[in-house]
Amino acid sequence: MIGIFDSGVGGLTVVRALMQQLPGHDMVYFGDTARTPYGTKSRETVISYAVENTEFLIDKGAGIIVMACNSASSVATETLREKFDVPVFEVITPAVELSVKISDTYRVGVIGTRATINSGIYEKKILEKNPKAKVFSAPCPLLVPLVEEGWFEKPETRMIVKKYLHPLKIKQIDTLILGCTHYPIIKNLIMHKIGKKVKIIDSSIAIANMVKDYLDETPDMEKILQKNGRTEFFVSDYTIQFEKTAKTLLGGNIKLQQTKR
Amino acid sequence: MIGIFDSGVGGLTVVRALMQQLPGHDMVYFGDTARTPYGTKSRETVISYAVENTEFLIDKGAGIIVMACNSASSVATETLREKFDVPVFEVITPAVELSVKISDTYRVGVIGTRATINSGIYEKKILEKNPKAKVFSAPCPLLVPLVEEGWFEKPETRMIVKKYLHPLKIKQIDTLILGCTHYPIIKNLIMHKIGKKVKIIDSSIAIANMVKDYLDETPDMEKILQKNGRTEFFVSDYTIQFEKTAKTLLGGNIKLQQTKR
Repeated sequence: MIGIFDSGVGGLTVVRALMQQLPGHDMVYFGDTARTPYGTKSRETVISYAVENTEFLIDKGAGIIVMACNSASSVATETLREKFDVPVFEVITPAVELSVKISDTYRVGVIGTRATINSGIYEKKILEKNPKAKVFSAPCPLLVPLVEEGWFEKPETRMIVKKYLHPLKIKQIDTLILGCTHYPIIKNLIMHKIGKKVKIIDSSIAIANMVKDYLDETPDMEKILQKNGRTEFFVSDYTIQFEKTAKTLLGGNIKLQQTKR
Repeated sequence: MIGIFDSGVGGLTVVRALMQQLPGHDMVYFGDTARTPYGTKSRETVISYAVENTEFLIDKGAGIIVMACNSASSVATETLREKFDVPVFEVITPAVELSVKISDTYRVGVIGTRATINSGIYEKKILEKNPKAKVFSAPCPLLVPLVEEGWFEKPETRMIVKKYLHPLKIKQIDTLILGCTHYPIIKNLIMHKIGKKVKIIDSSIAIANMVKDYLDETPDMEKILQKNGRTEFFVSDYTIQFEKTAKTLLGGNIKLQQTKR
């Protein structure tokens, strides 16, 4: 089946997009809520967590790994591909490819956690695809806690989003990558503050499209994946608040299972 | 020596208070930055982390354990006292005792993380000491990330503090316990928003006073503690941002050492 992991429940926006693109496919999700967030932590620590999460998903029967976490995708992709024998998808490349395709002015903005932005990964990958591009990045560390509190429409959230986006706005970007799985939840607010003309790239939709394209082109893999429409959700720490956030992000009912501590 | 732990670097406000009350005492600090924060996690997970942190500090030579973390103090005190042979101090009782002493109207407010407030520990302990007290609590989950971002004086922080304190203000509390080690950093803002007449209890100062009183009354313990004025700071994950926050909280220079991963 398809295995998806994230530092917490944010990656459920990717599960939602995968369910839309690949209906009927069995999935297993792991959210590392006992150690969430990854976005404030060091490269080495995030890599070691990503390896453990992948081992857990493969144990549960995953034949494909989807890293639904920008912080992990920024630093752990190479290690996972070296270490494991299954295809590993990360959330950055699909958004990068789409941005290069749709930007007219080659002025691309990226927002994400501190770990993602500090890694410089989006800038590096965009410039590899289009050396003429200008990439402007802004870390937005308060947006994850604001989304997890459910403060989607509060005036404080609006002010903070405006403040974070201001440096990108004055650079007149024409495309903005949402480089964090939590951000699609406040996509409308972000669109409003950055300006309606700026094209927004939702990395959860971009990665789901890439996984679908891969399966369309790899019938041998598509054939062996289970398709009973079952999805299991595991977390390393269960709380009511995580389940509440999970329902918001997945847009429906969900039962989180606590892994062995 | 004196061993202090916290979920992250917030507990350095307790170290600062201990240094003022017990100058010259050797200390060893452990901040569990690889798994921070604790305030959003479950009781069972926080207890298991507290046990591991205490083992680390005792290994490093701690003869007294100070839990400089409200979330851990709320749930793990009993387990640590059963499991370990050294005195264990928690950050809640000293603040509770002070509140009972200084409140005139017995209307006491408590602010903290979601884990601390949900545990109901402050209310329980205050009512044990004074059954006539009325305790009003408010979880303030966004204040830790705001402090860690260094947004001490920003208008957004002012608005959020005002919003969080409003339910306590209308209850006309006369005493407010800062039930999280990060909050002393924005004490002035909190005082301003709750009203100048409300007495503020800084739990980091309260616990430092209690440790000092204990050592004054326990000369055998006081005698065996090392006093070379040395303090070591360990973290389970080193990043520049954690060190920056650490400097803010301790109010001086500091070198964080990464523990073995």
